[in-house]
Amino acid sequence: MRTTVGIIGAGPAGLLLARLLHNAGIDSVVLESRDRAYVEQRQRAGILEQGTVDALRAAGAGERMDREGLRHDGIELRFDRRRHRVDFPGLTGGRSVMVYAQTEVCKDLIALQLKEGGPLLFEAEALAVEGAESDRPSVRFRREGREDVLECEYVVGCDGFWGVARKAIPAELSRVFERTYPFGWLGILADVPPSHDELIYARHERGFALLSMRSPSVSRLYLQVPADTDARSWTDEEIWDELERRFETDDDWTLRRGPITQKSVTPMRSFVHEPMRHGRLFLAGDAAHIVPPTGAKGLNLAVGDVITFARALVHRRQTGSEELLDAYSAHCLRRVWQAERFSYDMTTMLHRDPDATPFEERLQLARLDRIASCRAAETDLAEGYTGFPID
Amino acid sequence: MRTTVGIIGAGPAGLLLARLLHNAGIDSVVLESRDRAYVEQRQRAGILEQGTVDALRAAGAGERMDREGLRHDGIELRFDRRRHRVDFPGLTGGRSVMVYAQTEVCKDLIALQLKEGGPLLFEAEALAVEGAESDRPSVRFRREGREDVLECEYVVGCDGFWGVARKAIPAELSRVFERTYPFGWLGILADVPPSHDELIYARHERGFALLSMRSPSVSRLYLQVPADTDARSWTDEEIWDELERRFETDDDWTLRRGPITQKSVTPMRSFVHEPMRHGRLFLAGDAAHIVPPTGAKGLNLAVGDVITFARALVHRRQTGSEELLDAYSAHCLRRVWQAERFSYDMTTMLHRDPDATPFEERLQLARLDRIASCRAAETDLAEGYTGFPID
Repeated sequence: MRTTVGIIGAGPAGLLLARLLHNAGIDSVVLESRDRAYVEQRQRAGILEQGTVDALRAAGAGERMDREGLRHDGIELRFDRRRHRVDFPGLTGGRSVMVYAQTEVCKDLIALQLKEGGPLLFEAEALAVEGAESDRPSVRFRREGREDVLECEYVVGCDGFWGVARKAIPAELSRVFERTYPFGWLGILADVPPSHDELIYARHERGFALLSMRSPSVSRLYLQVPADTDARSWTDEEIWDELERRFETDDDWTLRRGPITQKSVTPMRSFVHEPMRHGRLFLAGDAAHIVPPTGAKGLNLAVGDVITFARALVHRRQTGSEELLDAYSAHCLRRVWQAERFSYDMTTMLHRDPDATPFEERLQLARLDRIASCRAAETDLAEGYTGFPID
Repeated sequence: MRTTVGIIGAGPAGLLLARLLHNAGIDSVVLESRDRAYVEQRQRAGILEQGTVDALRAAGAGERMDREGLRHDGIELRFDRRRHRVDFPGLTGGRSVMVYAQTEVCKDLIALQLKEGGPLLFEAEALAVEGAESDRPSVRFRREGREDVLECEYVVGCDGFWGVARKAIPAELSRVFERTYPFGWLGILADVPPSHDELIYARHERGFALLSMRSPSVSRLYLQVPADTDARSWTDEEIWDELERRFETDDDWTLRRGPITQKSVTPMRSFVHEPMRHGRLFLAGDAAHIVPPTGAKGLNLAVGDVITFARALVHRRQTGSEELLDAYSAHCLRRVWQAERFSYDMTTMLHRDPDATPFEERLQLARLDRIASCRAAETDLAEGYTGFPID
């Protein structure tokens, strides 16, 4: 089997890349180890930055998003029983974000790809990337019990943190940057209209809480819990009681309760692999970097990576110059590190660190107070939240 | 001995307070344990925020400062061999800072106080504050070998971190917030014109360095060193060599060398005592809070405290209301915590932490890159550097 670009992984990065390449007349094959139903159902991120929204529209994949997605013009920070709204368009010259679940993005891109794109092979498990340093890299994979080889001009690893692509970069050329956090998020989906029409990020002495939503009738809520928590150890009532405590305010705001349909615990990690390219193998999204979810950056970073790659390859085709492909890693990493910084800062500002000193707790409150009282600091946050430029 | 306001300590806080009270027709006595020559010579801070400059002028103590001080409209950040200038007036709507040494501020205020103020007693060592909870607090002190008592209506402790005033607040009412850093500053004074006309804050893999000045012919330079360093263990040549390395750039900038006239190591500490008031005892400046010197905030915070106290007492005199005196601690602490946050952030962004992970080192560079590329982040820094509002 042969193609120009072999794409490993049919998450949003791999799927959008296939779409961008198709639109540019470059053929590709996508290998995805899971089946279609799994990919279309796994709950992940839900916040699309302005740049991601623009990219999906430009790729012709924005129709349902524009119909069903919820445009959000701000978030609320809640701390010390106070409420502070951050007004995105007012602070950033018109930028906003879109609440539209990653699963929906994937569904839209899969439908498009199957209708008019190149091959998208489900249950095709990539085993290894070979010959990354040559002109003819390939992906060895297993499908329907048989091994096969996909011969490519370029391979893009969009196969997530646990994928095989990153392993093809020799250890002596790799540098890994990591941070784990002593807490995770207990996330629930609940069949109840969201209690607020924008996201609420709450810093509370008992721990962080986040109010989010998937649609006007489905709430998504999170509680900071110790990293090793078993989601089943929390009853539904305990979850609602704890959410209520952490979202407490001085006014008469109330939390609506409803049936919980899903419960799970997400670990929190910061991770970056440098470089993001080795020969003709390129890493994109979680294969190269992980952020804690507090800044809602993971999906958006992946989108930035594949846009950068597609542009570089089109440039190569049009001009013969490898310049942008050569610059891919450094170009992406600059944006990645800004997102890492932002996600780390949002995380440490809002979560209760069990090892924090009283001094560090006061610093947290001073940071929140600064954002609530200084337009420059608030603008810095709003610009970071709505997205770092992809160019 | 009797007075309205007993002031312990003739540093800039105590001296300015005496001046503000004198100007408002309120009498005071200042007790200072050291002699005049010592107070007029100890090397401390050198950067006056806009608000401090305005306050010294308004107090009638700005004449020589305006003649000899150096107005600075920016600082340079140096990292990764790059140079980035932060333009204060352009970012903050006209604010700047003044380079004028604390020793000079003290000399000016001492001269004024001796000429037309209330008693300023040198070599008068405060031993204890007594009766802070009563209407008649007093300061027991020793002078010329004899103990004496200063009876007051109010006592203000401007006696620094090691002073006695803070000890008069019962432990069960006190809360202390602290952070020490595993490094200090090796500071030098050198008889050589500064190599740059503004301060340079350099982040280098070998450690932080700061280029500053006392006058057009006297340089003040600092090197990050381990906390327990003996200044004598560095030869002059080693100091200049190390400074040269840490200030390296890609252009042809050069460091001028000259005779080193003073060498010392400053420890770095963050410290806050809450509350800053107990009954009729008020703490101001280092007696209540310490910041690492990176943000140049220590002197300026002290000035903010005494302005707040003087206003509150004048308000009490004019209206009979204790409201502003009662609000003193909370009012000051909000500004103090902003300065603590700023100083902590400047310190951790620029110093090499021997325990830092590679992830944290990349975050440092991402923070500097953010300031150099995002106007909002740069404005946040410029507003913090030129000063948090005293009101």
